[in-house]
Amino acid sequence: MVQEREKEVQSIVQSALRRFSEDRTGLADYALESGGGSIVASRCSQTFESKVALLSLFGVPLWYYRQSPRAAIQPDVQPGNCWPFRGSSGVLVLRLSSRVLPSAFSLEHLPKNLSPTESLHSAPKDFRVYGLREEEEEEGILLGTYEYDQDGESLQTYTTTEENHEPFQIILVKFLSNWGHEEYTCIYRFRVHGTPVQADPEEADPEEADPEEADPEEADPEEADPEEADPVVDLEADTENTALESQEQDQTLD
Amino acid sequence: MVQEREKEVQSIVQSALRRFSEDRTGLADYALESGGGSIVASRCSQTFESKVALLSLFGVPLWYYRQSPRAAIQPDVQPGNCWPFRGSSGVLVLRLSSRVLPSAFSLEHLPKNLSPTESLHSAPKDFRVYGLREEEEEEGILLGTYEYDQDGESLQTYTTTEENHEPFQIILVKFLSNWGHEEYTCIYRFRVHGTPVQADPEEADPEEADPEEADPEEADPEEADPEEADPVVDLEADTENTALESQEQDQTLD
Amino acid sequence: MVQEREKEVQSIVQSALRRFSEDRTGLADYALESGGGSIVASRCSQTFESKVALLSLFGVPLWYYRQSPRAAIQPDVQPGNCWPFRGSSGVLVLRLSSRVLPSAFSLEHLPKNLSPTESLHSAPKDFRVYGLREEEEEEGILLGTYEYDQDGESLQTYTTTEENHEPFQIILVKFLSNWGHEEYTCIYRFRVHGTPVQADPEEADPEEADPEEADPEEADPEEADPEEADPVVDLEADTENTALESQEQDQTLD
Repeated sequence: MVQEREKEVQSIVQSALRRFSEDRTGLADYALESGGGSIVASRCSQTFESKVALLSLFGVPLWYYRQSPRAAIQPDVQPGNCWPFRGSSGVLVLRLSSRVLPSAFSLEHLPKNLSPTESLHSAPKDFRVYGLREEEEEEGILLGTYEYDQDGESLQTYTTTEENHEPFQIILVKFLSNWGHEEYTCIYRFRVHGTPVQADPEEADPEEADPEEADPEEADPEEADPEEADPVVDLEADTENTALESQEQDQTLD
Repeated sequence: MVQEREKEVQSIVQSALRRFSEDRTGLADYALESGGGSIVASRCSQTFESKVALLSLFGVPLWYYRQSPRAAIQPDVQPGNCWPFRGSSGVLVLRLSSRVLPSAFSLEHLPKNLSPTESLHSAPKDFRVYGLREEEEEEGILLGTYEYDQDGESLQTYTTTEENHEPFQIILVKFLSNWGHEEYTCIYRFRVHGTPVQADPEEADPEEADPEEADPEEADPEEADPEEADPVVDLEADTENTALESQEQDQTLD
Repeated sequence: MVQEREKEVQSIVQSALRRFSEDRTGLADYALESGGGSIVASRCSQTFESKVALLSLFGVPLWYYRQSPRAAIQPDVQPGNCWPFRGSSGVLVLRLSSRVLPSAFSLEHLPKNLSPTESLHSAPKDFRVYGLREEEEEEGILLGTYEYDQDGESLQTYTTTEENHEPFQIILVKFLSNWGHEEYTCIYRFRVHGTPVQADPEEADPEEADPEEADPEEADPEEADPEEADPVVDLEADTENTALESQEQDQTLD
C-alpha cells in the first residue's frame, strides 16, 4: 500500500478508536453513577424479582441480590447486568449529576449476537423522555419520543425532538412497550447528554441524606442488628423497590 | 483520499469495532457468570493458594481472598484476575446458563505484551472439552481436543472437533499441559458458544440451593455468627475449594 | 474496493484493535493493582475529602466512602473513579509488583469530551517521576520530568528522560501543578513500564503484613467489633489517608 494512503487509513482507525474509548459516544453522560448521577428509586417501577443471586453461609441465607435501577446508570452492560421491570411498560427516574439543558439521550441494550436467546424480546421499544422540575412532579416537560430499533446498533443515541430551553436535573423515562417479552423488560444503560448549566444549590448534603439510602453491593446491612433472627425477611421488606439505593458523590470530580 | 474510498475504510473500521464491542467474538457465551453460568466447584481442581489478598482490621485478620474458578467465567481479564490451579494439569467444570448444543469454545489468556514476566509460561497448552449429562459424570462425551497457541491472539476460539448432536448443560474442560510454569497454570477466561436448546426444567431453585454456595466478594460471611471467636479459621476450612461459590440467577435476563 | 487493498485495511484495523485490547499501550504495567502493584499510603498526599458516598442502614451511618490513591492503579477510568488530592501539587508513591528498570510512564485522565464540566481543570500538568531505593527515601533518583498535555490524547505515555541503569520497586510521582482547578487535582491512572529484573526477596509475607492494611471496598470492617458504639467515628479516624489500604498478592500470577 502506498505509504500516504496507509497513513490516511491509520488516521481513520485512530479516530474511530478514540471515539470508542470516549464511552463510545464522545458525549458526557450526566446520568452516570460514578460521575454523580443517581436513581430516584421511589419513582421507579418495581424491579422484576428474579432473585438473581442467593448468598448464604453455613445454611443461613444472607442476602437476596436483586438487580436495581442503578444498573441502568452503571457502565457494565455484560449480559444480565440490566434493570428488569415487570411487563412491557415502566418508569425510570434519574437525578443527574448537575442541572443540564438536555440535547440527546442514549439507550443501550445487549447486542443481539450476545443474547442467550438469540433475540431482543426483552429490549424496550417505544419510550418517551421528560424533564421534571422536582422529583414528585407527575410528568413534566416532554423532551422526546423515541423507538429503540431492534435491528440497529446496540447503543442508540437520540437527539431531543421537542423544543426546550429549560435545564433539568431530574429526568423521567417512560417505557411504553417492548420487543415481545411477556414477563419483563430489561434496561441495560440509559444516558443523558447536554450542556451543564450550574450546580443545583439545593443539592442535598449526603450527611443529611435519606438514611435508607445505602449500597447493598458495598456494605453489609445485616450489620445493623447482629441479633436479628432472620435478616433476610427484614431486608426483603426493606429493599422493596425504594430502599437501599446509594447516595453517590456530593461533588462531581472531573 | 477519495471520498468513496474513505467511506469503505470507515465501514471496515465500524464493522471491526462492532465485533470488538460484541465481547470480541460476536458469539453468546453460555458460561458467562452474569448471564447465568456457574462453576461446579466440587468437580474443579483445587485452586493454587497464593493468598492474594489479606483483609484485616485493628489487627484481626478478616478474610483471605483466594482466586476461585469463578474468575474463569467473569469478563475481567486484567493481569492477575485468573483462576490458578497447581501444576500443569487440571479440571474446570461449568454449568451453562441453559442446555446448549456446543459449536465452539474460546480460551483467553493475558496478551504476552502485558505479562509482567514477558512470557506465557502459566498459560494452558493442550486441553480437551467434554459434555456431561450430569455433574457427577466422570468424563462424558468428548467434544474437542485443542492447543492454546502461545504465539497466537490472546483470545482463541475453537470449533468442536468431534461430531455431536447432543445438547449439554455441564461442560468439563480438562487441561493437560501448560507452557512451562512449574508451579501453576492460570485460566483467565473460558467461554462456551452454541445453540440453546431449552431451559433445564430441573434447574434448582435458588432458595433450595446448596447453602454453602455464597459469594465471598459481595457478602460478609463473618456476619453469620458475630460471636464466632476466630472467623478466619472457619472460613478457611469452609472455603477449601468447594464452598462459598455463588448461585447466580435462576432466570436468564436477555 | 480492490480485494487486496481491503485486506491491507483489515490488517491495519486488526493491528490497532489488538493494541487497543492490550491495555491500549501494549506495555505491561508494573503498578497495576491486580498484577501485584500497591500504594505506599503513608507517603501519599492526603486524599481530598469529598465524602463521595454515604452508606447507611435504618438511620445508622455505616461507611463514608472515600476515593483512595488505589484508584490510580486500578483500570477503571470512568468519570469520577480517580484519586483526588487537595490543591495542585501532591505526591503518589507506588510499590511495583516487581523490581523494574523503568523505561516509560503513562498518565491517563478523563477524555475532555466526557468531562461533565467540559474542561480538564482538575487534570495534573507538570510532574516528575523518581525511583526510590526504599519507601522512606525522600526523593530518590529523578527518572523524568513531564507535562500532561490537556489537548493531547487522554492516555499519554512518556519515556524516561534521565539516564538510569538502576532498577526500582518504589516509584514516587511528584505532581507540581494542574490545569486550573483551585480545590483539587485528580489522578485517574498512572502506569509504570519497563524491564523486570528480579523479584524482591524481602517482599513482605502478607500474613505478617501491617494489620491495618485492609480493603474497605471488599470487607466490612465494622464486623471487628459489633458492640462498637459508633463505628463511623473510629473508621474515620482510622482511614485518615494511611490505613485500610489493601495488601494485594504476595505472588504475581502471569
